[in-house]
Amino acid sequence: MRMSELSQATGVSVPTLKYYLREGLLHAGESLGATRAAYDDTHVARVRLVRALVTGAGLSVAAAKRVTAALDDPPEGWHDLLGQAQHATLPDGAGGDRCGRDDGDSGSDRGGAPATPRADTLVDVLGWQVHGQSPVRRELETALDTMRGADFELAEERLQDYARAVAGVAALDVESVPTDSPEAALRHVVLGTLLMEPVLAALRRLAQEDLSSRRFD
Amino acid sequence: MRMSELSQATGVSVPTLKYYLREGLLHAGESLGATRAAYDDTHVARVRLVRALVTGAGLSVAAAKRVTAALDDPPEGWHDLLGQAQHATLPDGAGGDRCGRDDGDSGSDRGGAPATPRADTLVDVLGWQVHGQSPVRRELETALDTMRGADFELAEERLQDYARAVAGVAALDVESVPTDSPEAALRHVVLGTLLMEPVLAALRRLAQEDLSSRRFD
Repeated sequence: MRMSELSQATGVSVPTLKYYLREGLLHAGESLGATRAAYDDTHVARVRLVRALVTGAGLSVAAAKRVTAALDDPPEGWHDLLGQAQHATLPDGAGGDRCGRDDGDSGSDRGGAPATPRADTLVDVLGWQVHGQSPVRRELETALDTMRGADFELAEERLQDYARAVAGVAALDVESVPTDSPEAALRHVVLGTLLMEPVLAALRRLAQEDLSSRRFD
Repeated sequence: MRMSELSQATGVSVPTLKYYLREGLLHAGESLGATRAAYDDTHVARVRLVRALVTGAGLSVAAAKRVTAALDDPPEGWHDLLGQAQHATLPDGAGGDRCGRDDGDSGSDRGGAPATPRADTLVDVLGWQVHGQSPVRRELETALDTMRGADFELAEERLQDYARAVAGVAALDVESVPTDSPEAALRHVVLGTLLMEPVLAALRRLAQEDLSSRRFD
């Protein structure tokens, strides 16, 4: 199909499609001459994914490129593929572009990486299978640092309690990942992780009100 | 004590204390003349709370004032007091300044308030005790609207599953609220609700990785 047809099939304007091409978010079509190219179903699937990532989930172009890069140069296995999508949901600069799950040994030798002692202890105590270089360890450590800075310390056992409770949420996340196509799975991981956050925040407050009413009313 | 001593006792500078006074976040001291006033332990407690809210939790001055207003004109009972603190953690403009838990009937007659059908159904099905006018219903509805706009619909049963899982998190929140003073309780509710959000987001991703590894690796 021509670019105008790709636009019709996806509901994305031609200028935006050209932008996706320039930014490397969309692979080139088959050249039919200097100014014409043919696109196919792989382009339709990719455009829908990119639009979902950028417009739906609000990813930056850099983060969206980390997701599409995982499609263009797929790691071995679904777990590592989904890991690259998940890391793209971290704030830009959180190391998501260099720390796939398959890029090094786990554990002790991290070179100059900052220490994440509370995150490491938590993962060890719970026996969770988390890559030693996962940038999420640093995210957790930073969040705990912020709490400490506000003089609101969380005891180690309490953090474990929270982790076990949150695992119930993550179980719902992971069991609902579709496996019919890599695009669908990556879309689900990114949108499900990011767009569920405000939903979970609201659910937490509703449940707090219910439980507060039972404890204090 | 004089203002300079209040500053020493709290670690908050005199210009910042004057700012708190001007903004109504701190009650006036006992006047000792045109330019002098005496402060006491109630001022120390209040300054520490305000600093925790504004600097620690990142509340806007308007939101912090909603919390201190709950102290200055306390509602009857801890549940409503804590509710006002919790509503201050919602984004500014989410209606937190007019929707305490004690300001109207629950349920059917909400005048011009926007409908929140999915939130209402959820609360009903789960039997949660949530005020009919709680602004959190609207927060949830908005978050679900955003998902729908991204073509990422959450089935009603699935939303209930998530709500039940999140209730395990909220139970930890509510059981840890201290009851030794209203200031301590309000501080705990606001900081615990807001500062835990990035912690919970990181824990969710760590748990996702563990469970993904078990499902896909």
